[in-house]
Amino acid sequence: MEVISTQTNGSAITMNYSHHNGNSDHRNGGTTAHDNGRKLLGNSNSIKPGWFSEFSVLWPGEAFSLKIENLLFQGKSDYQDVMLFESATYGKVLTLDGAIQHTENGGFPYTEMIVHLPLGSIPKPKKFFVVEKIDIIEIDDVVVDVSRKFFPYLSANFNDPRVTLVLGDGAAFVKAAQAGYYDAIIVDSSDPIGPAKDLFERPFFEAVAKALRPGGVVCTQAESIWLHMHIIKQIIANCRQVFKGSVNYAWTTVPTYPTGVIGYMLCSTEGPEVDFKNPVNAIDKLDETHVNSKLGPLKFYNTDIHKAAFILPSFAKNLIES
Amino acid sequence: MEVISTQTNGSAITMNYSHHNGNSDHRNGGTTAHDNGRKLLGNSNSIKPGWFSEFSVLWPGEAFSLKIENLLFQGKSDYQDVMLFESATYGKVLTLDGAIQHTENGGFPYTEMIVHLPLGSIPKPKKFFVVEKIDIIEIDDVVVDVSRKFFPYLSANFNDPRVTLVLGDGAAFVKAAQAGYYDAIIVDSSDPIGPAKDLFERPFFEAVAKALRPGGVVCTQAESIWLHMHIIKQIIANCRQVFKGSVNYAWTTVPTYPTGVIGYMLCSTEGPEVDFKNPVNAIDKLDETHVNSKLGPLKFYNTDIHKAAFILPSFAKNLIES
Repeated sequence: MEVISTQTNGSAITMNYSHHNGNSDHRNGGTTAHDNGRKLLGNSNSIKPGWFSEFSVLWPGEAFSLKIENLLFQGKSDYQDVMLFESATYGKVLTLDGAIQHTENGGFPYTEMIVHLPLGSIPKPKKFFVVEKIDIIEIDDVVVDVSRKFFPYLSANFNDPRVTLVLGDGAAFVKAAQAGYYDAIIVDSSDPIGPAKDLFERPFFEAVAKALRPGGVVCTQAESIWLHMHIIKQIIANCRQVFKGSVNYAWTTVPTYPTGVIGYMLCSTEGPEVDFKNPVNAIDKLDETHVNSKLGPLKFYNTDIHKAAFILPSFAKNLIES
Repeated sequence: MEVISTQTNGSAITMNYSHHNGNSDHRNGGTTAHDNGRKLLGNSNSIKPGWFSEFSVLWPGEAFSLKIENLLFQGKSDYQDVMLFESATYGKVLTLDGAIQHTENGGFPYTEMIVHLPLGSIPKPKKFFVVEKIDIIEIDDVVVDVSRKFFPYLSANFNDPRVTLVLGDGAAFVKAAQAGYYDAIIVDSSDPIGPAKDLFERPFFEAVAKALRPGGVVCTQAESIWLHMHIIKQIIANCRQVFKGSVNYAWTTVPTYPTGVIGYMLCSTEGPEVDFKNPVNAIDKLDETHVNSKLGPLKFYNTDIHKAAFILPSFAKNLIES
């Protein structure tokens, strides 16, 4: 089996482009995500000196804040502001352009679900348990360096002989991929404003569908039902036009993401049927040979959680299925 | 059927005692919930002038903030600071002692789940659909007045002829109740610090069990798996000693509560078996005769969401079942 993943092992980083959280957040009284990153300590825009506050045009009028116990890294890559600090409750926290991407103690639901929802649904356990090839495409080398240093459990797989780490543009990589080459593509994208917007639109989905084998699967980050139902409806409309196998919306809880939840689009190409809602691989019951055994057992994902991820509250179900 | 509820129709208010969020939050650098409530506009402890920030000893080092579009009410009752404001994303917001209790656009998951998880599980639909008697016990008359004025969809039932609204101490009311009198008790409590602490401990659970009929059910607010697993484990240990029917933990998402999730304990007394995980009443499929029809259809709860509420991530499942 071959898998293309923007970050198989974790943080919400790949296909991040600079300024994706916007530089002109007038709705937040002129506060910008960049300002938070640059002038953080003692910044009058953060909740108080020594705290990080997450403002964005994507969630105007609300902000989540964390006290910085210890600032570990702060810098500007070619693409974005990168900051890493130690928090009290969630351990190490990685932010890009002022938006929380991964936390040590609270990021694992996102990580485990974006990988195992699609891979648990492919009916070829032998090829899945012994993955032959994974391409990881990450645009920002600073993100790779920071992950290696501070999130060893995320970056351990960078050195796996089956993994090829490509520093480059994930969208261009997918577009250039051989038709029908991949079994699975995982799009661990940032939010759909700025350049990353393309990753939520039809031409990108068409490139993904082309790169997948018949009955291949894609999992993309698909925002919160509380904040962005209009974006979700648009993604679903695009996916229904492009993916002729099945199109599904799933969600999970992440304590440090806005509104506490995040969604995923799970789609398959025409070919062998993929029933995402009833996983064929009981990943949580795997023995020592499990590919993740080096990293310890899964903390969030299990087969029941997989099935429950597709169950939606009535208001979201009505909007999504209409 | 007879039901005792601290607030059948909604906000997380009853059995709130004054100062439940603590007056000496030294871990937050001396900020107190009370300070937030009193000196809100322009307060240096809020995220910025005109914003509300939710600090608590129960979630030190993190805070959720909302921009106040319009301050509608601010006052001090005999028991607590009461504030009501209009927010951009979540509509009207009610806070008690600086902690968010209910929001107009984001509070319904909590409300619907705390009522329908227990009541959907009782195998007497006829008596359930036509509830004969509901006692609501609320300690704070200011909370009742504010709810009547600003949350008509929550307080409509105060005038229902089947409802008796008692202004008083819920714990004392339960203790004094006739043994075996109630089919269901819903404890819509605040957090377990200060006087409300008693509502999470064994003597209160014993009073609840005594007030319930054989096979009667209780649903209590039971905190977040991300923040308070040690509290949850203690509640479960107490419930296992007191409730001889069944003891279950369920959870749901609420976008404006810390970490985005909240839990419930669902227990039954010895008697006719109650299988909470497989509801006997398909409340979401009810026709016009449904008790809630006056208030419109349920927005969050449905039978599948009910079942999914009992499915836990692996780390929580391991801790709760051990």
